[in-house]
Amino acid sequence: MIDFDFSIPTKVLFGVGKLDELKREPLPGKLALVVVSSGDAMKKYGYLDRVLKALRHQHIDYMVFDKIRCNPSKVHVMEAAQFARDNFCDFVIGVGGGSTIDAAKAIALMARNPGDLWDYIVTGSGKGRPVKNQALPIVAVMTTAGTGTEADPWLVVTNEELHEKIGFGVPSTFPFLSVVDPELTLSVPPFLTAIQGFDAFFHAVEGFIAEIATPISEAFSLQVIRLISKNLPKAVRDGSDLEARTNIALAGLLSGMVQSTSSCTSHHSMEHAMTAFHPELPHGAGLLMISEAYFSFFAKYVPDRFIKMAHMMGEVTESLPEDEKPYTFITALKKLKKECGVDNLKMSDYGIQIDEMEKLARNAHKTMSNLFAMDRYTLSLKENVEIFKTAYC
Amino acid sequence: MIDFDFSIPTKVLFGVGKLDELKREPLPGKLALVVVSSGDAMKKYGYLDRVLKALRHQHIDYMVFDKIRCNPSKVHVMEAAQFARDNFCDFVIGVGGGSTIDAAKAIALMARNPGDLWDYIVTGSGKGRPVKNQALPIVAVMTTAGTGTEADPWLVVTNEELHEKIGFGVPSTFPFLSVVDPELTLSVPPFLTAIQGFDAFFHAVEGFIAEIATPISEAFSLQVIRLISKNLPKAVRDGSDLEARTNIALAGLLSGMVQSTSSCTSHHSMEHAMTAFHPELPHGAGLLMISEAYFSFFAKYVPDRFIKMAHMMGEVTESLPEDEKPYTFITALKKLKKECGVDNLKMSDYGIQIDEMEKLARNAHKTMSNLFAMDRYTLSLKENVEIFKTAYC
Repeated sequence: MIDFDFSIPTKVLFGVGKLDELKREPLPGKLALVVVSSGDAMKKYGYLDRVLKALRHQHIDYMVFDKIRCNPSKVHVMEAAQFARDNFCDFVIGVGGGSTIDAAKAIALMARNPGDLWDYIVTGSGKGRPVKNQALPIVAVMTTAGTGTEADPWLVVTNEELHEKIGFGVPSTFPFLSVVDPELTLSVPPFLTAIQGFDAFFHAVEGFIAEIATPISEAFSLQVIRLISKNLPKAVRDGSDLEARTNIALAGLLSGMVQSTSSCTSHHSMEHAMTAFHPELPHGAGLLMISEAYFSFFAKYVPDRFIKMAHMMGEVTESLPEDEKPYTFITALKKLKKECGVDNLKMSDYGIQIDEMEKLARNAHKTMSNLFAMDRYTLSLKENVEIFKTAYC
Repeated sequence: MIDFDFSIPTKVLFGVGKLDELKREPLPGKLALVVVSSGDAMKKYGYLDRVLKALRHQHIDYMVFDKIRCNPSKVHVMEAAQFARDNFCDFVIGVGGGSTIDAAKAIALMARNPGDLWDYIVTGSGKGRPVKNQALPIVAVMTTAGTGTEADPWLVVTNEELHEKIGFGVPSTFPFLSVVDPELTLSVPPFLTAIQGFDAFFHAVEGFIAEIATPISEAFSLQVIRLISKNLPKAVRDGSDLEARTNIALAGLLSGMVQSTSSCTSHHSMEHAMTAFHPELPHGAGLLMISEAYFSFFAKYVPDRFIKMAHMMGEVTESLPEDEKPYTFITALKKLKKECGVDNLKMSDYGIQIDEMEKLARNAHKTMSNLFAMDRYTLSLKENVEIFKTAYC
């Protein structure tokens, strides 16, 4: 019987030009910590300036922290949290993609709580202590499409010392406000557009096959799968196609709602292990590398759901033998990867060695064990190693 | 291009047995005003006792206000708000159906704001003054399925003196928490099950054809239409069918989410006029009486959307001439009404006279003008009168 909790307390402003509404939208305080990446994109494209201008328009003071890297590091999170505390910041605004927004969430949490982030993390080496205080309110201004962090409480941070990349979240790490303005994604180059879009796609797919899928998450998942299949190749081919960009931004947002109403599966645990040891590997690329091997393994355990997803991607299954039908999802996935130019990503291109497979599987099981519990079939360590090996090239 | 704001800050506990979780769920204060209807159902079925027991378990004090009637009256709202203020209540819990929960919302609002509810109402004779203070936090324990008030900010109150039944809401009239436990709807008799289920159905349909429909509201709408078509006849036929009840409760919840992400149309304005003059007419029954005339009028203006809704209800349209396809929705609606035993509701049975049609249309245009702005075709007063006349019997 259907049974679920629903909570997505974030207010979302979605649409082309919505960043301009930040001037008028009520914000939760008078001193903001603005968090951006260490790269120059947010400055070059004027996004940071537009946010700062909106804050000035509202007579809100701000300080900028600009050291966040791809797969954000715990070290920077703790540094920024100390900075926010020392300066009595009222709220945190992240301006950027998933890494920046996740870092902003972690900073907001640690600005209001004592000790180290790993004191609260519940898997891996985390001490799993209860979070005492609500995070500072978080505002997310998205400049990429795919992560979904704009509509979920999750933050993923890497502890480089321990080789642990772990997701965490509490109700107060839902953003207070998220601005999803597809115009800001026009500057994302084709390869990043593709791998970030696939991140949204995999959130939806994993959320759909997860044990705890709900009727609400299912409606979102199927819409994401349809939107990505139809629009991602267009957005990759022609980055100026604002309609395709808008549909991908919508898919990204909905994929966050999937993560708030269902869950990722061990596919994400496995990828986290890869980037925990190879932080220069972008998350979406890691997911893509293992996706065919992973979902081919799971197709037989959740056949109906794989068939439904294949249908959303335009596959016709009527004339096929029953046991082949679920695998049309793999066919569709391969096609979509090819159309988006990401069908040839190799682990070896990022320096991952074949003899690391067992280490990665062990790391996945240890640091992100919670997502294995979401699978409808429980992967053994051996099976996990096999999937990694099948995916390796 | 897609453009919308999204905000549904309510936490929802959905599922059979979820009322028991009220014992453990964090509640927003130490003194609750518990609002129930003037009938004996909440006491007879033990729902009120279960809520009070949960409060005692959490060491929360309470006072009970039990004067709410079907189509709740402003007089009772103002009386209860004064009572809540005089006793320094921290929050309001409504236990019941749409009338009770809407009253609880209005009470929570007026307990924190000066003057009269009609000072803030923005249509009809309302003075449209800005609401100064946030409402007291609201908890909704649903015992019927259909209104959707558990997941939207709207409250509908009747000013009997002025013959005005008006919907109103602000962000703080979203419930803080809603408990949707389908088991509590087992006690709803067949006729009420049918008309309340149709209320959810019409919220979804209107939200789907409204000018401001969004991709999120559309996903919810189509799911509601499918769930109601499949399950409402079952729940009406066999009130103990918990699976059908659960699906109808889910449809009710999602129909609230439709109202939070899209809007009702003038169909609801017209019904409000009917109950403004005839408060003994149940809302869902009023909607049913005018539905065929209303949607037959609108089918030609939004043909694609009517066809999509008809498909969700199992109609096949391929072989039909193009201009007939939208009307298959009317065919499906008639079938569904018949299957639920509500195909013979007559305005005359509730004392409505044929010479009232112009008065009703004028009242609809005056008191709920805002919903006419949501229609994709703007109804003239004359057309509105014609729809009422066509519906009359």
